Amino acid sequence: MLQNIRVVLVNTSHPGNIGGAARAMKNMGLARLVLVQPKEFPAADASARASGADDVLENAQVVDSLEQALVGCNLVMGTSARERSIPWPLIGPRECGTKAVEHALAGEEIALVFGREHAGLTNEELQRCHFHVHIPSNPDFSSLNLAAAVQVLSYEVRMASLAVQGVAPKVEKADANELATMDEMELFYDHLEKTLVDIGFLDPAKPKHLMPRMRRLYGRSSVERTEMSILRGILTETQKVVRGEPHKRKD
Amino acid sequence: MLQNIRVVLVNTSHPGNIGGAARAMKNMGLARLVLVQPKEFPAADASARASGADDVLENAQVVDSLEQALVGCNLVMGTSARERSIPWPLIGPRECGTKAVEHALAGEEIALVFGREHAGLTNEELQRCHFHVHIPSNPDFSSLNLAAAVQVLSYEVRMASLAVQGVAPKVEKADANELATMDEMELFYDHLEKTLVDIGFLDPAKPKHLMPRMRRLYGRSSVERTEMSILRGILTETQKVVRGEPHKRKD
Repeated sequence: MLQNIRVVLVNTSHPGNIGGAARAMKNMGLARLVLVQPKEFPAADASARASGADDVLENAQVVDSLEQALVGCNLVMGTSARERSIPWPLIGPRECGTKAVEHALAGEEIALVFGREHAGLTNEELQRCHFHVHIPSNPDFSSLNLAAAVQVLSYEVRMASLAVQGVAPKVEKADANELATMDEMELFYDHLEKTLVDIGFLDPAKPKHLMPRMRRLYGRSSVERTEMSILRGILTETQKVVRGEPHKRKD
Repeated sequence: MLQNIRVVLVNTSHPGNIGGAARAMKNMGLARLVLVQPKEFPAADASARASGADDVLENAQVVDSLEQALVGCNLVMGTSARERSIPWPLIGPRECGTKAVEHALAGEEIALVFGREHAGLTNEELQRCHFHVHIPSNPDFSSLNLAAAVQVLSYEVRMASLAVQGVAPKVEKADANELATMDEMELFYDHLEKTLVDIGFLDPAKPKHLMPRMRRLYGRSSVERTEMSILRGILTETQKVVRGEPHKRKD
């Protein structure tokens, strides 16, 4: 589905940026790069910055005009740094990613268009776009590197594609471990309290708020079973020391 | 509020990446860069790639260890490319941005930690993080450039900060209790480790995954200062028992 999405770089000056863009794309699962009149390509700098995304560079299509780059496209979204005099549908990177994926799923061809390093896209080029995409940068310092801009939009495309596959990255694993049950927690608090009395830290006559505080701390930690058995093991060893029993360590 | 968020680069090899990271940060409104043993810095390449974000480079703090870089931090999130043997709370970039902003709004100090260009962060470094952040890249080609990774997380921080702007901070700390800082947590882990050795629970020759598991448990608990002093007090009393010193309890 991502193969329906092409990245178009217009009039790039620095071949290093082409390489950086290729690397960003490949990392995010995009492969189709179209270069409109690059100043210098192929170039050693491009390959160096591509760092393993050479296939994206090798398969890059070099064309003479934006029009050629957009042949067959149904949806064109172009990055725009500045407010334009002509109002145009303006979206953010997230919406750009969602639109790209939705349209790609519908079998359409999509282009993400990036302008020159310093001058961006011309008004004429921007008018070939269905949407302008503005990456919300710091108003006092808005000079995103070209490869960084490709990175942000490619990332949002990937996030949108993972979301439709139902595999959006969320908190994993940590939750996959079995948690101690409430009754195991109670046994732990009981054991902890006894041990704190044993070592002389808790005075049963003046317990203050010690145990409530410990309950609050461990209660909010979602203690896992394996962690619980470590904590219980520590308490057991501590009690052995109090009783003067020989402890495990052999030294 | 974004001034509470620092970007930490560990052992960066290529100064160009430091410059690229600085530029990415400044574009997204971040300013605090901390460099742990950079191979080469300051460097012409860094300034060239920073392209106007020279102030971020000039104000960058260079330190000798990750520990120093994290002094005063309440929340540490480190990028991780690989699946780890010890499961750790794993989040995506979007959640990372949201967490960073929520905690910054609550007045806390946050660090986003990035590893070496090829080797990433070591297991030990990753264990100093509360959360691991995985940028969901193409499984067949996962070699995000360092500056690109900084770009993605900084972008998500910016998106999250724009989302909350003008809105009252949603997540205040339930009770405005002060959290232990990273350096206080390190002193605790150190004390805990020594005590576990003292009571014979931890064999320094075969530590297994005991301390990483303890770091993971307490790391995700947002331990408060008052709780920390209780935990330290328990350890101190336990050590007294091991040394056969008379303990507090009068019975």
